[in-house]
Amino acid sequence: MLDHWDNVAVHPVMGQVERGYAGGSLFWRDGVLREDLTRVRAYARLLAAAGINAVAINNVNVHAAEARLLTDRLGEVAAIAAELRPYGIRVHLSVSFASPVVLGGLDTADPVREEVRRWWAAAAGRVYAAVPDFGGFVVKADSEGQPGPFAYGRSHADGAGALADALAPHGGVVHWRAFVYNHRQDWRDRSTDRARAACDHFAPLDGRFADNVILQVKHGPMDFQPREPVSPVIAAMPATKLAVEFQVTQEYTGQQRHVCYLAPMWSEILGFQPWGPDGGGRTVADVAAGGGGLVAVSNAGDDPYWTGHPLAQANLYAFGRLAWDPRLDPAAILDEWAGLTFPATAAELRGTLHALMDGSWRTYERYTAPLGVGFMVRPGHHYGPDVDGYEYTPWGTYHFADRDGVGVDRTRATGTGFTGQYPRPWREVYESAARCPDELLLFFHHVPYGHVLRSGATVIQHIYDTHFAGVEEVAEMRAHWDKLDGTGLVDPALHSRVTELLEEQRRCAEEWRDQVNAYFFRKSGVPDAHGRRIP
Amino acid sequence: MLDHWDNVAVHPVMGQVERGYAGGSLFWRDGVLREDLTRVRAYARLLAAAGINAVAINNVNVHAAEARLLTDRLGEVAAIAAELRPYGIRVHLSVSFASPVVLGGLDTADPVREEVRRWWAAAAGRVYAAVPDFGGFVVKADSEGQPGPFAYGRSHADGAGALADALAPHGGVVHWRAFVYNHRQDWRDRSTDRARAACDHFAPLDGRFADNVILQVKHGPMDFQPREPVSPVIAAMPATKLAVEFQVTQEYTGQQRHVCYLAPMWSEILGFQPWGPDGGGRTVADVAAGGGGLVAVSNAGDDPYWTGHPLAQANLYAFGRLAWDPRLDPAAILDEWAGLTFPATAAELRGTLHALMDGSWRTYERYTAPLGVGFMVRPGHHYGPDVDGYEYTPWGTYHFADRDGVGVDRTRATGTGFTGQYPRPWREVYESAARCPDELLLFFHHVPYGHVLRSGATVIQHIYDTHFAGVEEVAEMRAHWDKLDGTGLVDPALHSRVTELLEEQRRCAEEWRDQVNAYFFRKSGVPDAHGRRIP
Repeated sequence: MLDHWDNVAVHPVMGQVERGYAGGSLFWRDGVLREDLTRVRAYARLLAAAGINAVAINNVNVHAAEARLLTDRLGEVAAIAAELRPYGIRVHLSVSFASPVVLGGLDTADPVREEVRRWWAAAAGRVYAAVPDFGGFVVKADSEGQPGPFAYGRSHADGAGALADALAPHGGVVHWRAFVYNHRQDWRDRSTDRARAACDHFAPLDGRFADNVILQVKHGPMDFQPREPVSPVIAAMPATKLAVEFQVTQEYTGQQRHVCYLAPMWSEILGFQPWGPDGGGRTVADVAAGGGGLVAVSNAGDDPYWTGHPLAQANLYAFGRLAWDPRLDPAAILDEWAGLTFPATAAELRGTLHALMDGSWRTYERYTAPLGVGFMVRPGHHYGPDVDGYEYTPWGTYHFADRDGVGVDRTRATGTGFTGQYPRPWREVYESAARCPDELLLFFHHVPYGHVLRSGATVIQHIYDTHFAGVEEVAEMRAHWDKLDGTGLVDPALHSRVTELLEEQRRCAEEWRDQVNAYFFRKSGVPDAHGRRIP
Repeated sequence: MLDHWDNVAVHPVMGQVERGYAGGSLFWRDGVLREDLTRVRAYARLLAAAGINAVAINNVNVHAAEARLLTDRLGEVAAIAAELRPYGIRVHLSVSFASPVVLGGLDTADPVREEVRRWWAAAAGRVYAAVPDFGGFVVKADSEGQPGPFAYGRSHADGAGALADALAPHGGVVHWRAFVYNHRQDWRDRSTDRARAACDHFAPLDGRFADNVILQVKHGPMDFQPREPVSPVIAAMPATKLAVEFQVTQEYTGQQRHVCYLAPMWSEILGFQPWGPDGGGRTVADVAAGGGGLVAVSNAGDDPYWTGHPLAQANLYAFGRLAWDPRLDPAAILDEWAGLTFPATAAELRGTLHALMDGSWRTYERYTAPLGVGFMVRPGHHYGPDVDGYEYTPWGTYHFADRDGVGVDRTRATGTGFTGQYPRPWREVYESAARCPDELLLFFHHVPYGHVLRSGATVIQHIYDTHFAGVEEVAEMRAHWDKLDGTGLVDPALHSRVTELLEEQRRCAEEWRDQVNAYFFRKSGVPDAHGRRIP
């Protein structure tokens, strides 16, 4: 069954990598294919070592010049495919839904119109003539300014269908992103809820997608925060092939300047039982295995260490490994990666790497937004803290902190009703502030600062405690790494790069700690129970 | 005495106008002089009509290509001077303090070194050979990344002196910006204070500047907020020629999308008595008249209406008129401007223009940051509200709002001591929360939300009241303007442009109202006394 998994590392184009934190693009420079593809071949080997078997080579936000990869720039696609093919990796293309208009000169891209379907069929035919093992198309439609079927009054099933029919004769698939977000939200209206959007839009379409359409669903309902509940879409579309999308690139998890080993988070998500323990033991991993597998945005670029932070390589590796075996232990994956990366010294490095990385996701969570509330990052680039940065914006990403409490009421009883998108038991677990897991409390509930968590701590004291602890843990990571200095166990240049990045992580973690603690102290007026300094 | 005034409209370069809100540069396109200088000639006429007699033609942040205007691009400077000369306007150049290194190939720009002084003398000589009526240099040193004398352990008096000596034989002057801000502040440390920086740095240098150096001082201690106290530097340097700098470009006052007639603010500042009513009646205008006059950043660009918002032309005009006669009534200046701008219909337009513009600065103040606290704008571009946008940054621009109160304690008794930079009576007036003018209260004091203003309202109710009122006033402005529709009293295209901009001003004012009110309601928990909706 695992053979049906299809892992696509979505990779951006144009040299300027969107949400890329590892230098420029491996494929493109100044908007065209790089002359020297040696590094592309090496990348293929890297991906293959991790088990990744497909790559989308351009950005899902398809700009004009990139759109032409589908037509008169097919030669560039074929050249990349030639480099990847020896490693068993198939090329996918992100395409614009408006291609029939933009590239084909038609006056419509309406997916049910015959001339549009003919155009897509001809386009697919030309692609397969150039790249016989082409994987398929990736589409982000009707979202963040990208065109889509809504413009023609058609559903996303209709829209995906036109492309799927064009690819079917050649064995290709459409990865259709279940991400619709053209409507902006008003922070003044607490009844609307961005978390609901994907399920509201896509669940009614269950069973209406063609066989070779894979609906690509972000693992959480929002946008790759360090902590989110599993997306309710995953349980809501049993008659649709779903791929679960992770974010290997660390947009919200330290942007490859912070050590944040994500395998423990992915492992937790993959093992989550959308229908609960009484649901036959079915997990997120099972849903993905029965459908479209795992998909992610890559974290690699033309950086000498591939991923900016040398230790972030482990995330790319773990993504591939978990895609093939979601039950693998993240710590064991780390050992594998260390063995491949530091073949001569892995045994001696083991203790240090585990000390730095095993708990790094939870450490990151501790010093950033508390209790699942998310989005306290600086707007735009999303690095570093800005507690109110998204609070009064149209993005639907709020925490609603006031002098009495904090959190988003997503209950059916008094809130946005998002909890009702989950099957039992989760709709009841999340509905109850007493039963909701602590780490998701503020995602689902607005509670007073004095609310006592399942852990026994109040919300406000939990905020202080975790933020002090997070910074201390970064200091410990740094101390562990420092001990390697001069041992020769890692290359001195790599050691020095990681040291610099840990110093930045320490600085940034302190900034998070001080800003989050000061923000909530100013709001709540509750002093730290242990008398520590809050600026 | 007014003849000594020297009005420099500092104008940015390179086509991309920094803090410009009226299209591209009038002088430059793609980094070089425009081919067609017709518009430059017309601009000269516009400036002359307002009484402005000098223009710095490039950005004070001098980038590499612009720096060369001083040397091998002198022909472009001469070409602009030729267009401006018929209108009596002299050209000034913003220069980099590092020019001897960057352009001259020297290994130092140390202002006391002989080869550096020789280089400046030769450079000035070449400039005057090309432009015999050249005005002089504008320098922003040791601030926001610009190089300066600090790098060589020299004072700003030494630094300005080197350039002044080079210009002196030709009758040129140095405009030296009294703006030193390379040191970043820590929001966690409430003892440091950006407001103190200019006085701390420059007052000790009083009397040490050369005769042909004009120290250019921003009118307030911070950065052109809609409301600031007058800068204490203005009273602190009696033995130095000072120019007072205004900001005609509306960086913090609606960016030429909002109607904000600034003459009433400038008039208030110019009439302010730095030594109080017992100080012989001396005003800010008198200080400027005895020194370097008024200086401003222009608000004009290649926009068809010159200034983006057609009504923003009145600000450029008023700046020039106040420079020559600071006692002019802003309403009378508006009538003059209307007469020149709408010669056929000014009489009929008078009522509408006064209704829109006379009170527009105070209206803008009402719906933005309250009681002089400033800087609740979105970071970076500075348009629209973000109450905490600068609160946890290194920029020294804080409001310190918590659940109990708001404002910056700048007293000698318990705060940063900034009040001590003023002479009597202001050091005592500002020191006292009871005597401090309401509109500056939060600039000087941190007070509880229940603090009763001199107006009789509490701080929190004042915040609510002014924000509701500000939006209502914009609606009234809009209603006045709408009545002109179809009357033929203004060109329909101009009417339509202003209508669109008033709609944006209404939208933005509501955003300010809702965000500021919601922010302070969430913090304080105090409901509006009149039960109006706070989101």
